[in-house]
Amino acid sequence: MTTPVRICFFGDSLVNGTGDDDGLGWVGRLVSRERRAGRDVTAYNLGVRRDTSADIAARWREEARRRLPEDCDARLLFSFGANDCVEEEAGRARVPLKETLAHAEQILREAMTRAPVLMVGPFLPGAARIDGLCPRLQKLCAALRIPYIETRGFAARCGVLLQEAAAGDGAHPNSGGYAALADFIGAAPQWGDWLDGALTSAKDAPADR
Amino acid sequence: MTTPVRICFFGDSLVNGTGDDDGLGWVGRLVSRERRAGRDVTAYNLGVRRDTSADIAARWREEARRRLPEDCDARLLFSFGANDCVEEEAGRARVPLKETLAHAEQILREAMTRAPVLMVGPFLPGAARIDGLCPRLQKLCAALRIPYIETRGFAARCGVLLQEAAAGDGAHPNSGGYAALADFIGAAPQWGDWLDGALTSAKDAPADR
Repeated sequence: MTTPVRICFFGDSLVNGTGDDDGLGWVGRLVSRERRAGRDVTAYNLGVRRDTSADIAARWREEARRRLPEDCDARLLFSFGANDCVEEEAGRARVPLKETLAHAEQILREAMTRAPVLMVGPFLPGAARIDGLCPRLQKLCAALRIPYIETRGFAARCGVLLQEAAAGDGAHPNSGGYAALADFIGAAPQWGDWLDGALTSAKDAPADR
Repeated sequence: MTTPVRICFFGDSLVNGTGDDDGLGWVGRLVSRERRAGRDVTAYNLGVRRDTSADIAARWREEARRRLPEDCDARLLFSFGANDCVEEEAGRARVPLKETLAHAEQILREAMTRAPVLMVGPFLPGAARIDGLCPRLQKLCAALRIPYIETRGFAARCGVLLQEAAAGDGAHPNSGGYAALADFIGAAPQWGDWLDGALTSAKDAPADR
């Protein structure tokens, strides 16, 4: 086993793994794969259904503090924005684009002073708003030198994910879709680099703008 | 599927599933089993390594509030006390018995006003202190009419659990031990009754003593 790593996964229902009859989601599958490959990972799944960037901004600091002792080798993963884009009233998103980006910048800037951070981009099939959000989130992460994994294109083409969501509650996949997501995210070079701790750290973070 | 249920599982590393190469722990296994049996369960695993009753008393209310909307059919599970019994200095437990019981009563009394509560008793092979704690926790739960599942005797006899813990970090089992724990807890009548919502609720809770 390598040096023990403790990871907090912050996000929404897709991070939680809502709808997966295997009880794993993509997070559980990737954690299991890393452990079987000899990496000593402790995972805290902190995905919450319906959470927007505002909800995560309000809770991540305290929930991470309670799980990541000062002396541990910590990692932080964030994945949010899909619920921000949901329209509760016609034409009106739960969180406007500008606020989502402000929350994201505030969260990521603080998180990167604490541990290596990875952002997994949101997806929400059929929602035009997310096509506006994702490139902006990606650009923000690039400016902060935080690795970003784009999932929107993959999810839009992923047959099993779309079929399971349609057959389920309309929004969440089941085991097949979560397995496909795990394969996709785990295959991204950003995933392994981040786990290795090879990327962002407080020391080489860009100065505040 | 039955009425959707959302469950917060509060506890320590055994609730987290630390050491399980399958990434499930006993919580993930029972959630998967219930979903495959047709129950629409959303699970929030809020087990944290090294957490004592004091740590859980300090965080459970806020973490549950952020995960359980007012209108959902909620369940709360607690499992703590093993870390309280760990001696950091010779002869001195991390949390004295009297304080553990005070935390437990405070947590459980408030939790049962919010949702049906289940307590899964702690275990810590080889620790005499836990033999003093468990009967007191069980008695407290009985007084509050909260179902309690005793695991100490089972864990002490569970070969795969003890072997995996010895082969691992000395404290945590792996897939086999967690599967055995899931089978044991899931087979207790308290588990199914609690999921059905058949037991304690705020309305029939005993008056404050």
